[in-house]
Amino acid sequence: MAVLGIDLGGTKLASAVLSEEGEVLLAETVALDHRKGHEVGLLVTGTITKMLRAFEDGTDRILSIGISVPGISNTRTRKVWAPNIPDWTDYPLFDEASAAAGSVPVVVDNDRASYILGEIWQGNAKGCRDVIYLSVGTGIGAGIVVNGEVLRGSNDIAGATGWMALNRPYDSRYDNCGCFEYYASGDGIAKVAKRLLAESDSYSGELRKTDLSGITSRDVFKAFENGDSLALSVVNQAVEYWGMAAANFVSIFNPEKIIFGGGVFGPARSLLPLIMKEALKWAQPISIRQVSFDVSGLGSDAGVYGAGYLALKKKYQPHKK
Amino acid sequence: MAVLGIDLGGTKLASAVLSEEGEVLLAETVALDHRKGHEVGLLVTGTITKMLRAFEDGTDRILSIGISVPGISNTRTRKVWAPNIPDWTDYPLFDEASAAAGSVPVVVDNDRASYILGEIWQGNAKGCRDVIYLSVGTGIGAGIVVNGEVLRGSNDIAGATGWMALNRPYDSRYDNCGCFEYYASGDGIAKVAKRLLAESDSYSGELRKTDLSGITSRDVFKAFENGDSLALSVVNQAVEYWGMAAANFVSIFNPEKIIFGGGVFGPARSLLPLIMKEALKWAQPISIRQVSFDVSGLGSDAGVYGAGYLALKKKYQPHKK
Repeated sequence: MAVLGIDLGGTKLASAVLSEEGEVLLAETVALDHRKGHEVGLLVTGTITKMLRAFEDGTDRILSIGISVPGISNTRTRKVWAPNIPDWTDYPLFDEASAAAGSVPVVVDNDRASYILGEIWQGNAKGCRDVIYLSVGTGIGAGIVVNGEVLRGSNDIAGATGWMALNRPYDSRYDNCGCFEYYASGDGIAKVAKRLLAESDSYSGELRKTDLSGITSRDVFKAFENGDSLALSVVNQAVEYWGMAAANFVSIFNPEKIIFGGGVFGPARSLLPLIMKEALKWAQPISIRQVSFDVSGLGSDAGVYGAGYLALKKKYQPHKK
Repeated sequence: MAVLGIDLGGTKLASAVLSEEGEVLLAETVALDHRKGHEVGLLVTGTITKMLRAFEDGTDRILSIGISVPGISNTRTRKVWAPNIPDWTDYPLFDEASAAAGSVPVVVDNDRASYILGEIWQGNAKGCRDVIYLSVGTGIGAGIVVNGEVLRGSNDIAGATGWMALNRPYDSRYDNCGCFEYYASGDGIAKVAKRLLAESDSYSGELRKTDLSGITSRDVFKAFENGDSLALSVVNQAVEYWGMAAANFVSIFNPEKIIFGGGVFGPARSLLPLIMKEALKWAQPISIRQVSFDVSGLGSDAGVYGAGYLALKKKYQPHKK
């Protein structure tokens, strides 16, 4: 008995057949290679067909399929909006995947939900019923689990944490991404570094040597580890924002755990004690002592495990298509 | 068939026998008069005994009892921590109330939960499944309902919204109450006005005439309505904080509605359009267009209706004591 987890990202499709215990029986990753619209749909349905066939005769038959998407899966219309996949503004992924899956049930959910469910199943949130996965990559989002259930909101767009208001007064630079994301996402960290470089005449450290427009958050973290002064001030500011945002989650949700994931954690994982130190200043004082901060236990595999867990949960529900 | 709702506040005990349709059959309010510890417990159990007796023979028999408390009701230990009632650090209210109630089931919950449940039952949140009651009085708290259920957190202290981090860098003045509460609670508004008065030599408006230490948020709102310049800047700042906090709720929870209640709304109810204008700048842009802001439909009765609704919900559950 097995499940198929499919994690559709902005640049690749990762899939894995997983046993009920979370053991990987078969895994595959395919680049999207600038596919768009229905071509991406075909990639997903092709994977489903292939994986079902590979397991159709064995004892490890695939009993359900979970798909994680980088956007919003509308629970009412069952269509997907994915801003990084061209022509996926209202894409009928559920219908297409269900047609390919035949009698095998399918569930589609957003990546934020998948990340935290993956961590609950096989990562660093095992046993947690009130837990938050703060994803800091190019952008910022959060998968939030409340009393064992994913927080969805009235229209499936809960967890839009990049828009958290943390630094008054309002600045029009926040217009396109939100205040928190502007300063503390991977893109934000690179942007802040570029701005400081452009403004500073006296700085002559290692980031100065790099082509200004090509600076990434990875460059900033590398310079930070080498003790670079400009990188230090950029990272310290990001730590302040991460600490404030984590504190707000703690005061509002009183969670057991906050997991820091996404591409930035990664390089920023050693900063967790500093983030906790900042959060301790701001948060409800009893609640902050009941929470622990951790990094992702699954890294970039959180989505595929989460999709597998979606499938596993689906298996125990009556089959409604 | 009726329920008994009891709303214990920091200064008074309000109770009402309510029909299943929310009609008030009998109501009573008693001042706590500096009672403490077990004396407050006796007031509650005395009310229960009296109300049960008053209805023991009629068609409107009391079938369940809900009690709202100004603090934390621990769902595991069933004891109450209420900072404004002396000697209620770990008070066995559930046990005492259950003993007085005999075979009638009792449920105890915190006031934030009661406020939003009251609004859902009989106020301005009817039919809502994702809704937040932002209570702004002496302090700031929030009752949060997610998918029809009250958000509690891992240790029953979710919703501690007064601690929301909104204004960096950290300031030790936030130590005892949190950043949001420091600026935008009733106490906060009075404090900010006092500080501005102490700092300003040129101001000679109506707040100058008042005894400085006696200034309340009500004085500030009165002066604001008269166009007073100092009151204007204090209220504008509070609007900015309320807008940022509401925006954060919108981005994180994607709710249908946010209800502004507590003593300050009240006088601040006319500010709702300005608060929305501020929130529109900060919040996730799709989510903010799916939410509406409203004031409490029940005012200071939200707690007693909420306690009644707790009782009503309890009535339909198996009786576990």
